[in-house]
Amino acid sequence: MGAWPLWRREVMVRTSASFLAEYAERARRRIDAALATYTALGEGCPTLLREAIQYAVLAPGKRLRPMLVLMAAEACGGSSEDALPAACAVEMVHAYSLVHDDLPAMDNDDLRRGQPTCHKRFGEAMAILAGDALLALAFEVVSKHIRPRERAAACCAVLAEAAGPCHLVGGQADDITGGLTQGGIEQLESIHRRKTGAMILASIRLGALVAEASAQQMEMLQKYGERVGLAFQISDDLLDVQGTQAAMGKRVRKDADQGKLTYPGLLGVEQSIERARRLIGEACEAIEPFGSRAEGLLAVAGYVLERNC
Amino acid sequence: MGAWPLWRREVMVRTSASFLAEYAERARRRIDAALATYTALGEGCPTLLREAIQYAVLAPGKRLRPMLVLMAAEACGGSSEDALPAACAVEMVHAYSLVHDDLPAMDNDDLRRGQPTCHKRFGEAMAILAGDALLALAFEVVSKHIRPRERAAACCAVLAEAAGPCHLVGGQADDITGGLTQGGIEQLESIHRRKTGAMILASIRLGALVAEASAQQMEMLQKYGERVGLAFQISDDLLDVQGTQAAMGKRVRKDADQGKLTYPGLLGVEQSIERARRLIGEACEAIEPFGSRAEGLLAVAGYVLERNC
Repeated sequence: MGAWPLWRREVMVRTSASFLAEYAERARRRIDAALATYTALGEGCPTLLREAIQYAVLAPGKRLRPMLVLMAAEACGGSSEDALPAACAVEMVHAYSLVHDDLPAMDNDDLRRGQPTCHKRFGEAMAILAGDALLALAFEVVSKHIRPRERAAACCAVLAEAAGPCHLVGGQADDITGGLTQGGIEQLESIHRRKTGAMILASIRLGALVAEASAQQMEMLQKYGERVGLAFQISDDLLDVQGTQAAMGKRVRKDADQGKLTYPGLLGVEQSIERARRLIGEACEAIEPFGSRAEGLLAVAGYVLERNC
Repeated sequence: MGAWPLWRREVMVRTSASFLAEYAERARRRIDAALATYTALGEGCPTLLREAIQYAVLAPGKRLRPMLVLMAAEACGGSSEDALPAACAVEMVHAYSLVHDDLPAMDNDDLRRGQPTCHKRFGEAMAILAGDALLALAFEVVSKHIRPRERAAACCAVLAEAAGPCHLVGGQADDITGGLTQGGIEQLESIHRRKTGAMILASIRLGALVAEASAQQMEMLQKYGERVGLAFQISDDLLDVQGTQAAMGKRVRKDADQGKLTYPGLLGVEQSIERARRLIGEACEAIEPFGSRAEGLLAVAGYVLERNC
């Protein structure tokens, strides 16, 4: 495990599992309540569109990204209440990206979060529009509900950059044009850094921004976010090989079957696990100075190593 | 022409046509140069995605909405240079909405701005992603390039609301689910107010915001924006009946052929023209207090009545 001694990791994982379960349940309730409020769209929003939006964003999910927003804010001594709008915005962007990625013209998936994908349930046109609406809504929530306003603008900038053509959309564009069918570990990491990592890192940065993190705190959290983002993708690849459709709520063994580059495919299962452990070790080290306030972030780091869905 | 005497309208239209032609050429050059800069995306953005984005947003177009941003800023005594990022953002949102509206699952159009639609040229998946990227990019440009930052947040809020599920996306959702195949003038206006009017109004509001408009100025400009937005749609419907594909750069007689509600269909051609004239008269009256600083806005009002593409 390199720089990080094994006993510390094991203690952490044990304590963090129960802590995280409790934290996650509380946080999910708050996040889902806020998401429900933000998407209870009134005048001007057609009923079917509202239903498609809520279907996509309120479907049972881990809420990992919004939880990271709250946890990063807490680590910096900020209030998770103030960070709630940013947390919801991040989940909206995530949900939009899943809806569009699942479309027939893209990954053509039928199952997501254990239920039919948005276009299977509402048709393709409405799914495209629900995704579009969620993306716009994310910026509406951040720009209207984060205070003071100069902080809201900074949050919009972080969110827009992460969701944009050089990150989230760029990673997906490289993926659908066969970027993962050739090349080596650098190509794999470049795509995942944008497709998955950027929004995880943005979640951390948004929480820090809302809590007025110092430059030093931001630097530590960025290091954590980058490492966790990459480790998360490795565990995703491992689950694609080892997980079950029932636990994941989506099609598994998809990437391997399509001949896509994966960490276990390139490095083997053992080496992939080792790489994830090293990244998580580095992530935990980076936020050590936060002490007990970073308990949530440490717990998530432990979860990324141990997760089975 | 109701409250607006005919001679004033005619004088206005005559002077405004030459003024507008000159203004538009200058403005379009500036807007297109800025759009080219903002979409010259570097590291992380795949080449094909960048090409699709630029194909969509740099295609020859009227640039009506971004021009309205600049003109509203000028009317309030602000600098059009400061308003340029907001102008580009509005055009990006407009371009994104055209790309997604043209998709096979939506309006299934092959021709836009005189060239093959984005999905015809780049494929459906890349067109969806180019639209997504343009929407995110619009918020990146506003949040990063409008100063001071509290103004940037206010602009993000206006843009997000206009682009969101209660306006632009909501209007399109109502349209694709057959909202324009039944009902009367109120239904027609409700859809167009959201689908076309909201972004035209947002353009005006953004220009005013950047120029620090007073509450009174904002109120006058809002009135102008609402009226011009509706009149623009009436003239669009009239052109759908009377225009040519060559001039319009897109399929014509589409709405009428699909049995959709249109102003000429509901009111007849003469009454539709009369209605547009009344709206434009009211729009011009609303901004009279701005005097010569509103010359651009007056010229656009005249253009909406006289346009043939």
